Amino acid sequence: MRIAQVPPLYEAVPPRFYGGTERVVSHLTDALVELGHDVTLFASADARTKAKLVTVRDQAIRLDPAELKSDLAAHMSMLAEVRRRADDFDVIHFHTDMIHFPFFEDMAGKTVTTLHGRLDLKDLQGVYDRWPQYPLVSISDDQRRPLATTSWAGTVHHGMTTDIYEFHAKSEGYLAFLGRISPEKRPDRAIAIAKRLGKKLKIAAKVDAADQRYFQDKIEPLILGDPLIEFVGEIGDDQKSEFLGGAEALLFPIDWPEPFGLVMIEAMACGTPVVAYACGSVPEVIEDGVTGFIVRTDEEAVEAARRATSLDRRKVRQQFELKYSATAMARRYLDLYARLGAPLSQDFAFAANA
Amino acid sequence: MRIAQVPPLYEAVPPRFYGGTERVVSHLTDALVELGHDVTLFASADARTKAKLVTVRDQAIRLDPAELKSDLAAHMSMLAEVRRRADDFDVIHFHTDMIHFPFFEDMAGKTVTTLHGRLDLKDLQGVYDRWPQYPLVSISDDQRRPLATTSWAGTVHHGMTTDIYEFHAKSEGYLAFLGRISPEKRPDRAIAIAKRLGKKLKIAAKVDAADQRYFQDKIEPLILGDPLIEFVGEIGDDQKSEFLGGAEALLFPIDWPEPFGLVMIEAMACGTPVVAYACGSVPEVIEDGVTGFIVRTDEEAVEAARRATSLDRRKVRQQFELKYSATAMARRYLDLYARLGAPLSQDFAFAANA
Repeated sequence: MRIAQVPPLYEAVPPRFYGGTERVVSHLTDALVELGHDVTLFASADARTKAKLVTVRDQAIRLDPAELKSDLAAHMSMLAEVRRRADDFDVIHFHTDMIHFPFFEDMAGKTVTTLHGRLDLKDLQGVYDRWPQYPLVSISDDQRRPLATTSWAGTVHHGMTTDIYEFHAKSEGYLAFLGRISPEKRPDRAIAIAKRLGKKLKIAAKVDAADQRYFQDKIEPLILGDPLIEFVGEIGDDQKSEFLGGAEALLFPIDWPEPFGLVMIEAMACGTPVVAYACGSVPEVIEDGVTGFIVRTDEEAVEAARRATSLDRRKVRQQFELKYSATAMARRYLDLYARLGAPLSQDFAFAANA
Repeated sequence: MRIAQVPPLYEAVPPRFYGGTERVVSHLTDALVELGHDVTLFASADARTKAKLVTVRDQAIRLDPAELKSDLAAHMSMLAEVRRRADDFDVIHFHTDMIHFPFFEDMAGKTVTTLHGRLDLKDLQGVYDRWPQYPLVSISDDQRRPLATTSWAGTVHHGMTTDIYEFHAKSEGYLAFLGRISPEKRPDRAIAIAKRLGKKLKIAAKVDAADQRYFQDKIEPLILGDPLIEFVGEIGDDQKSEFLGGAEALLFPIDWPEPFGLVMIEAMACGTPVVAYACGSVPEVIEDGVTGFIVRTDEEAVEAARRATSLDRRKVRQQFELKYSATAMARRYLDLYARLGAPLSQDFAFAANA
């Protein structure tokens, strides 16, 4: 199959630092190549890929030191280039929300659009209503909730290559928190849970400028002077395996409708169970009592973190490989592409199964 | 003529506060109606207009207290609506940079696109090169410089209704600075000029969050304890006439390629001459020795501010009415529309006169 992958241009593919969407596109693209498909990636020149690369910008926008640049213009140029070459592909897979809709109206039936973000934004319904011909993919069923009546073609959970995170058969006796420091990620809950258990918590987190105040006012006072809580700062991809693999459990105490939550499957890849609050995609991603525990209150979370060592870390890793490998993700997308490819797409029924 | 006006959705039309583009579109739209044309304005419901209003959002994006909204989605919905009604118009006039390009390719010849911003952004050339069929209008000749080879159809300077600013025959003996406090607007230069002259300077300016630090570190120390310098803060439209009209001269000591600079013609409307640095549109907008002085150094600026009282304030106002009234602007656009309207647009030659 001749497949085009069209990610956003904000981060490199894969990202050098933060950046979920570009990371997933990178894993998907390489897995499709490994499954024998003819894949073309449209991206900035700093991409590393097993696919053919069509370069549409010299570098990713957020890495570009140029002071004056336009992310809208960069994406419009990319999409014009994709359209110019559209006949070269059987399927064009967009990860660009909606910006491509006016470009591909005459061939919407051979496109797939994965929505990577939260969908409870005021202006979105209007756009998805106006372009119902585009088959949309959600990254969890829960993500669809605010746009339940749109043209959903399926849900495909994220996957990752199985070789970047190492399985750790034994933990080193601490709890872990990994992500951004921000109110909806609830690092305060993670700290409270660790303190009630009297167990060490390591926090590896980025503090964005927008969250600096929250960090100083709310989180730092909870950390300072408490030997149980260690703030590690932001860590790179090469440190994640050790950090997550050493933990008894990853605490994922979120308080917002997380569309997917990559860090959950990163922990699972290391064999580390996840104690996660029942928000957003959590009930779809975590198998309660197998890959972690799904909790609703701080009391349940404390109890679950205590029991985390009772779970079989080998089984956690197996579940990751089975459900959340890049190959598993690629196969699910291929099923979807195949349905699109049917003659005239007449028998392709949108399933609004939310 | 049946004319559609399509402004951005960030501010109300006209803006309640800051917002140059929406202000100019408001003046243009009303002036076209007064000249007898059938004008439709696409805008949020808070617009006040003499034209027919097609409401495309409940309120302007920046005034909307909703936390989660998408400016891209809002604009895409608006553009889809404009396209749905496109046959109702002889001319569709966009003020939305480039976002409409993929929507109107089959009718680009009956569109006009006014570019309101600076054009020295890294990604712009690529987009304007890919859609050469769209006739573009610059708001000054200087603005074109970074994109000299694009499809320019003309330059139309901004205009304003002549009744919102009152002519002031006599000044009250102070210099004025009006705008945002930011490094490229050079309030520090204005302060230095006033101090060297020993003349009072009133600064009416907004301090954006992004410029708070610059204000505190660089500007406040120059103001504090100096009785010559009065910081008035941000003023509303209803205060501008008195503020500008009372000044001997408006200081416009900019240090960046200002595409137009509305405040210059606001001052002229009050009869107040402008002492402006030769950047961006300044040499096109100010007639040296008539509506103000064009300067290149602080020494020249001091000398010019001293001589400002020698200019005929009545003549300054007359020049404003002649060149920068909303009616003058509307007539220039009508000339442009008429050229577009010629059969098949075959005789419409793009003038790349930059």
